[in-house]
Amino acid sequence: MPQGQPSVIPDDGLTTRQRRNRPLVVVHTGVGKGKSTAAFGLALRAWNQGWPIGVFQFVKSAKWKVGEERALRVLGDSGEGGTVAWHKMGEGWSWVQRDAQMDNEDKAREGWEQVKRDLAAETYRLYVLDEFAYPLHWGWIDTAEVVAVLRDRPGTQHVVITGRNAPGPLVDFADLVTDMSKVKHPMDVGQKGQRGIEW
Amino acid sequence: MPQGQPSVIPDDGLTTRQRRNRPLVVVHTGVGKGKSTAAFGLALRAWNQGWPIGVFQFVKSAKWKVGEERALRVLGDSGEGGTVAWHKMGEGWSWVQRDAQMDNEDKAREGWEQVKRDLAAETYRLYVLDEFAYPLHWGWIDTAEVVAVLRDRPGTQHVVITGRNAPGPLVDFADLVTDMSKVKHPMDVGQKGQRGIEW
Repeated sequence: MPQGQPSVIPDDGLTTRQRRNRPLVVVHTGVGKGKSTAAFGLALRAWNQGWPIGVFQFVKSAKWKVGEERALRVLGDSGEGGTVAWHKMGEGWSWVQRDAQMDNEDKAREGWEQVKRDLAAETYRLYVLDEFAYPLHWGWIDTAEVVAVLRDRPGTQHVVITGRNAPGPLVDFADLVTDMSKVKHPMDVGQKGQRGIEW
Repeated sequence: MPQGQPSVIPDDGLTTRQRRNRPLVVVHTGVGKGKSTAAFGLALRAWNQGWPIGVFQFVKSAKWKVGEERALRVLGDSGEGGTVAWHKMGEGWSWVQRDAQMDNEDKAREGWEQVKRDLAAETYRLYVLDEFAYPLHWGWIDTAEVVAVLRDRPGTQHVVITGRNAPGPLVDFADLVTDMSKVKHPMDVGQKGQRGIEW
């Protein structure tokens, strides 16, 4: 439970309220479970605030996260909180034609191009860039450009990025970084993933 | 992304399917963010499977997690997935009379007594025991008893326990343990928690 008291009062010319409401870049990295799961948990808070939420899944497979997707869609359609737009690389980005002819590297870049357009247009208030650390780690997308775009993004737009091996410059730039470490996993003792827990 | 292939095939007399569907005890511990958030993210998957979910919040304050609570309640009431029962120590457990005369230690124990009754009755298929590691760490509830009750629980009941300082015997017993480590937090640089992100 946060104690609500920062350990340092910075000399940045901002009031406490201005500082409090500064938009955040959040990174969930590490080899343990819970990186994406915690990001979708954060989306529940954003939904409760009535914020428009944009999810961009930078993964090939559409197999995982069906539970989170269905839940967020039901919440977004309930009219009781924020809206939810869910974009999946695995099924082809909706704004890309002839997706089948593109390799994954190009698909990942097309996803990032759309994120840039949405940030410029202030389309969402919370962005979940799920597994986005992978195309950065692999060098498919330039981390320096991502940091520059995030630094210069207008308005109050929070961005959550998940995935193993988040690049150092992104970690350095981010406001909140959590490393999920694996202590123990059922697969270590021969248990495969199961419905309702792993997806 | 899980690869779906366990590294060891155990000699436990179970089929792959039996092993796969073995109920899990999951622990989210460590000093970083995301322990509870990831637990509620897991609840989205359980909801999607149509499982009855029981949340027990072992915290004094009812201030935090309002977003997760409202989202899970809306989902539970939607009729499209599982049901959600949300129990809060902070506002008084619903099954306890004269709660105001009890100290927090007694309240925590009353919560655990109800969890035991529900496990025996197989009331839920997923239990989120939020911040339950604290009363264990403080010695308010006996960790050995908790491990024994979890070991002997009937049926297929998954249990997720969150909180810092999860006791060693619980970590040893659990099937899946993730340690959330803080790499960086906005409070370190003087930013207080904000609506939609921290709660």
